Amino acid sequence: MQLLLEKIRQQGIVLPNNVLKVDSFINHQMDPQLMKEIGKEFARRFQNEGVTKILTIESSGIAPAIMTALVMNVPVIFAKKRKPLTLTEHAYTSSVYSYTKQETNIISVSKDYLKSNDTVLIIDDFLANGEAALGLINIVNEAQAKVAGIGIVIEKSFQEGAKKITNKGYRLESLARIASLENGTVTFYHEHSLKV
Amino acid sequence: MQLLLEKIRQQGIVLPNNVLKVDSFINHQMDPQLMKEIGKEFARRFQNEGVTKILTIESSGIAPAIMTALVMNVPVIFAKKRKPLTLTEHAYTSSVYSYTKQETNIISVSKDYLKSNDTVLIIDDFLANGEAALGLINIVNEAQAKVAGIGIVIEKSFQEGAKKITNKGYRLESLARIASLENGTVTFYHEHSLKV
Repeated sequence: MQLLLEKIRQQGIVLPNNVLKVDSFINHQMDPQLMKEIGKEFARRFQNEGVTKILTIESSGIAPAIMTALVMNVPVIFAKKRKPLTLTEHAYTSSVYSYTKQETNIISVSKDYLKSNDTVLIIDDFLANGEAALGLINIVNEAQAKVAGIGIVIEKSFQEGAKKITNKGYRLESLARIASLENGTVTFYHEHSLKV
Repeated sequence: MQLLLEKIRQQGIVLPNNVLKVDSFINHQMDPQLMKEIGKEFARRFQNEGVTKILTIESSGIAPAIMTALVMNVPVIFAKKRKPLTLTEHAYTSSVYSYTKQETNIISVSKDYLKSNDTVLIIDDFLANGEAALGLINIVNEAQAKVAGIGIVIEKSFQEGAKKITNKGYRLESLARIASLENGTVTFYHEHSLKV
C-alpha cells in the first residue's frame, strides 16, 4: 500500500533492537485519512471471504479495525488485555506475551460476541513475533468460529510471526512488509522496496 | 443523539453499583455505523471551535475519537495508560484514578504531538467521576495548548464529573446524559427522557 510505505519512509523512526517507531501516525498520534485508506484496503482484500465480524486487540488495533468494519459493514470487537470488572467470566481467553513490554497478558473476548457461525477477520497494527495474532486466532478457534484471515498494517517480515501464521494455513495480508531495519534504515520486502 | 439513546435503551444493561454495560456496541463490541454518526455529531457540535487536534485515552475512547477526527480532518492522539518502551520520557503526564478498575494510572502524551498553538477537542466514551477527562485537560494545560471542549458519548449526570468540568468553565457536550440507573432502569436527563 503505497501511501503507507511513503508515510513509513517519511515519518518512521528506527530505534535500537529492531523497533520501528510510527507513533506520529499509527499508534499514538493517528492520521485518520490514512486509517480510512487502510480500512478500505483491508476491506478490498478480504471482500470475498464472507466476513461477519472483525476482531482486534486494544489499543492500537482499534483504529484500523473500526475503519475496516465501517467499509465492510460488520461489527468489530476488541479483545481486552485484562478483564475489567464490568466483564463477566463469560469469556474466551488466551495468553499473550509482549516482547516490547516484556510481560504476559490474558486477552479476553466475551462469549456473547463470537459465535460458531461467525467468519472473523483479525486486524492488528503490527506483526512481529506473532504472539498477539496467534492469541486472537486461539480465541476464534475457542469459539469454533472460522478465521477469514489476518490483516496487518506493518509486518516485520524478518521476525517469526508471519511464518508461524502462514505455516498454520491462514491467509495473511500485510500492507507494509519490512525486510530489515538494519543500519537504522527501513527496507521493504520484495517488490515494495523498489517502488518507494 | 437519538440513535445512541435508542441503542442504550435496547442494548444497555444496568449492573449493580451504577454500572451501565454497553459492551455490545460501544466498548468491547463496537457498531462502526453508530461510531461514524457519533463522530459526525461531535464534529458538528465543535465545528466553530477551531479544533486542530483531538485527544482521547486508550482504549474505548479511540473509536469515537478517530471517527470525529476523520470528519474534522485533524490528527487524533490517544493518551497511553503507562509508558511503553518505545515512548521516550519526553511526555506530558497526569495521574488518573479509575473507580471501575480501582487503580491509578499514569497517562501520558508525547510532547511531539501537542503544541502550545493547538486547540484540542477531548473525546471519551464515558464521563462518571471525571478523572480521565480532568487528566486529559491537565495534559492539554501542561502543553499550554487550548481546550476546545470535551465531547462525551455517555455522561452519567448523577455523578460528579460533569459538574467538575463545567465548573472549571469548559464546554462539555455529551451525546447521552443519564439522570439515573436506579431500579435497573436507564433514565435520560432533561428532555431526552421524553423523546425516547
